[in-house]
Amino acid sequence: MRSLRWPVAVALGLALALEALPAVLRWLRGERRRRPRREVLFFPSQVTCTEALLQAPDAPLAAAGPSALTPAAPGGCQCSLPHGESSLSSLLRALLTARASLELCLFAFSSPQLGRAVQLLHQRGVRVRVITDCDYMALNGSQIGLLRKAGIQVRHDQDLGYMHHKFAIVDKKVLITGSLNWTTQAIQNNRENVLIMEDEEYVKVFLEEFERIWEEFNPTKYTFFPQEKKIH
Amino acid sequence: MRSLRWPVAVALGLALALEALPAVLRWLRGERRRRPRREVLFFPSQVTCTEALLQAPDAPLAAAGPSALTPAAPGGCQCSLPHGESSLSSLLRALLTARASLELCLFAFSSPQLGRAVQLLHQRGVRVRVITDCDYMALNGSQIGLLRKAGIQVRHDQDLGYMHHKFAIVDKKVLITGSLNWTTQAIQNNRENVLIMEDEEYVKVFLEEFERIWEEFNPTKYTFFPQEKKIH
Repeated sequence: MRSLRWPVAVALGLALALEALPAVLRWLRGERRRRPRREVLFFPSQVTCTEALLQAPDAPLAAAGPSALTPAAPGGCQCSLPHGESSLSSLLRALLTARASLELCLFAFSSPQLGRAVQLLHQRGVRVRVITDCDYMALNGSQIGLLRKAGIQVRHDQDLGYMHHKFAIVDKKVLITGSLNWTTQAIQNNRENVLIMEDEEYVKVFLEEFERIWEEFNPTKYTFFPQEKKIH
Repeated sequence: MRSLRWPVAVALGLALALEALPAVLRWLRGERRRRPRREVLFFPSQVTCTEALLQAPDAPLAAAGPSALTPAAPGGCQCSLPHGESSLSSLLRALLTARASLELCLFAFSSPQLGRAVQLLHQRGVRVRVITDCDYMALNGSQIGLLRKAGIQVRHDQDLGYMHHKFAIVDKKVLITGSLNWTTQAIQNNRENVLIMEDEEYVKVFLEEFERIWEEFNPTKYTFFPQEKKIH
């Protein structure tokens, strides 16, 4: 029996090593073991100052390091609003992580802070595409006109029904979706929810929905005299 | 080198056995390996007949077995609508799995089919609680009055902001949430999404939000002459 001791020890050692192999490989590749992001934001959001998040650096994408995301930098805004975290600042932060692409599919978009965040990403070289509802494009306070003016592609429906989605996809990796229309009224007064999900499966189906609608709302297909007025 | 052969074989065997251990334990405990439910429904939904799902058996909870959920039973509805699956029928099915509790937190609720499903669950002894927005309680076609008449508890806000959530929690296990208001207009005409997630973490935070609002909207706290009219 004694002769079995070391082969058994070697076997156990090897078995454990095989178990640990994926973690070791991740460590060698310098990847931190990180849980995918799963967050829920509830609204109404406390009204906080978001200037530190939204200060537009002239620098393009490469120079826009993590410092652009840190709040209340020295010499930052001195206004009387609280400078802590809020549901709105968490939403802004989630958007501002975009480095390559941002898809927005939004019924209504009039929040100035969210509009500034999207313009900032566009300036940094992120490819931004926006789908919205035609009835809400030119409403008082809508951000859509400003985004178009800044050179961001926007497409809209021409249906009787509403384009009522309220989702965003960041870098084709994170889905942001919920009940929240991107308006100050909703952010500050309504009971709303927003899920932030780093989840391949959900991102995939929402991205497919986005691409389907994006193609369907191709301006080459617009008609300029719709048959009927939209019903609510 | 020959002497290493069998320790290596044993090591591989052990590693595989360790890998398989969780599955073996589940099998020994008699648990079926079932992926938690993760589904996305997109709208507008095809208009299909949902009678087979909604035929109300007189039987209470215990007798309402899976047969109540099978579509187009022999002798079922012979109407001219298609009898296949649709986003609406999937949503109805997800709700009708409730056996113990159903929390609804809905901005607008006027879909007759969804109203019937909720009443059916109430008849079967499921504990149904509804939170809604006060402005949408008495709208033309609202289901809220019918649900109250049937004896279902309903609470509403008295805020200037909207109670704009659109979520349901089935048996404290499955979260149903998205952009969809439970109206026929939205179901049949709008671009909408609904996530169906069997996910402890998300259920927990949404249930906490429900209980928080439920307590806040306790009728003992209602005031009957609000100071100001709601702004949109």
